[in-house]
Amino acid sequence: MKIGIVGSGAIGLYYGALLQNAGQEVAFLMRSDLEKAKKTGIRVVSGTGELHLSEVQVSGEASEIGICDLVIVSIKATANSILENVLPPLVGQETKLLTLQNGLGNDRLLAELFPRNQIFGGLCFVCLNRTAPAVVENFMPGSVSIGPEKAENGEAAKELVALFSEAGVKTRFEPNLQLVQWKKLVWNVPFNGLAVAAGGVTTDVIVGSESLCEEARGLMREIIAAAEALGFEFQEGFVEYQIKLTRGMTAYRPSSMIDYVEGRPVEVEAIWGEPLRQAEAAGVAMPKLEMLYAILKQICRR
Amino acid sequence: MKIGIVGSGAIGLYYGALLQNAGQEVAFLMRSDLEKAKKTGIRVVSGTGELHLSEVQVSGEASEIGICDLVIVSIKATANSILENVLPPLVGQETKLLTLQNGLGNDRLLAELFPRNQIFGGLCFVCLNRTAPAVVENFMPGSVSIGPEKAENGEAAKELVALFSEAGVKTRFEPNLQLVQWKKLVWNVPFNGLAVAAGGVTTDVIVGSESLCEEARGLMREIIAAAEALGFEFQEGFVEYQIKLTRGMTAYRPSSMIDYVEGRPVEVEAIWGEPLRQAEAAGVAMPKLEMLYAILKQICRR
Repeated sequence: MKIGIVGSGAIGLYYGALLQNAGQEVAFLMRSDLEKAKKTGIRVVSGTGELHLSEVQVSGEASEIGICDLVIVSIKATANSILENVLPPLVGQETKLLTLQNGLGNDRLLAELFPRNQIFGGLCFVCLNRTAPAVVENFMPGSVSIGPEKAENGEAAKELVALFSEAGVKTRFEPNLQLVQWKKLVWNVPFNGLAVAAGGVTTDVIVGSESLCEEARGLMREIIAAAEALGFEFQEGFVEYQIKLTRGMTAYRPSSMIDYVEGRPVEVEAIWGEPLRQAEAAGVAMPKLEMLYAILKQICRR
Repeated sequence: MKIGIVGSGAIGLYYGALLQNAGQEVAFLMRSDLEKAKKTGIRVVSGTGELHLSEVQVSGEASEIGICDLVIVSIKATANSILENVLPPLVGQETKLLTLQNGLGNDRLLAELFPRNQIFGGLCFVCLNRTAPAVVENFMPGSVSIGPEKAENGEAAKELVALFSEAGVKTRFEPNLQLVQWKKLVWNVPFNGLAVAAGGVTTDVIVGSESLCEEARGLMREIIAAAEALGFEFQEGFVEYQIKLTRGMTAYRPSSMIDYVEGRPVEVEAIWGEPLRQAEAAGVAMPKLEMLYAILKQICRR
């Protein structure tokens, strides 16, 4: 299968490398890491060892790659506006598109750009950092949940689950993609958000401060209330489960916090803006998220 | 009248200088500005000219000043814990105490420390900056509202109003001190708070951003709801009046924002913590203020 990776940051490098290693034909569309990857290939470092792909197909132009069977979109959602120019050379009638991005609205955007293609979303529960050009480090292999943007494409989503599983990734089929997106937001909204708004702190600072931890709970309750108003169900005790999970992470740096302290764009609209707008449209008040969003929008202006 | 000024920042320098200029005996208790004031006196700069007091009674120790007729407390509320050690040498049986500090809880603290003395509070609606040691600059003379901590001391409060008026300050008698404190909080909570939380911005940025301005309105509504639950009345349209007033200030730097960007302690408890606790005790939910307070508490840790 010919797979195009659009956006070769931590997520794109990591899953692309694993897929190539499992025998797929993978073409990486890159900008900043291009020269380095051409010279030295791509390196995946993890606690259990290192995977080095010395021969990689890397390119700075989508037209050099051409039509793919599968396109994986792993750019930051803040750069989504480039997709309408970047994707067309990669997408034929049969091309499937899979977004592995944070937040809400990414799969819908792809569906708008390519209404006749099958669109899928994947949520990556993983700890990855791109530590140098064309080098990605994995701290926790975690899992990926993949589901279809349209329910009728469930069987095709299962084929993608098999593809990732064969590459050694623990992967789950998720019939209801939006439910998983909202579940991931229950963590991302408070912990990415407060980590940035509180000045660039790690998760242990948030769960270690009585008032910040209480605000994290309040934000989670707002997200769950919105998701429930939209028809999704959450199990009892989900909020406290997230707090407990986060205490176990000790001093974790959420991705938005890293982007913020390193001066890169933060995915403010995908993670905070879009859920707020969807909740408002569903008539759910989110006073805490509104406050956090307004502050983030201001401090993340570059 | 012998007046002791405890805390010779912008507020203490300014009103102390005006009172001395009007013929009162004023003793300034100082720390950082002491040597400069001893050498060159105190200077008040304003648009209409300059007042220079070359001979000033300044001191680093309260015991050198002794018992006063009136003690004016104008330290930052963040330093209130020093008052129980600093004030006793200044306070006799007949001494009146006037706090010119921001936020809630300052007059109550003085009443706890000196239950037999008359306590007053003053709210300064003024634009002042201490621009150098022993130099204060006035950008807008504004007004002071003075009222008694206990209703029975209304007449004595009127004498203080007369004292300030004779010194050239536009001064109002305020029978209900707490109402004025809450009214000032309607402005201070959103504008000092968002100016800090949004990264150290001026007021024009807040009223110029649709989402920050909407959050300012939401915070004002929470403060007014809390104050109303506590029995205070607000006129219709007070929120929009504050927004309009703030638009007129153009790029104003609220005092907490200056403290924050200059690395000094911010009055987090007096301005955000105490109103929140009083509202909670009155059963009023303040979800936005809770969020803002949690963020401020974290980013203002020094």
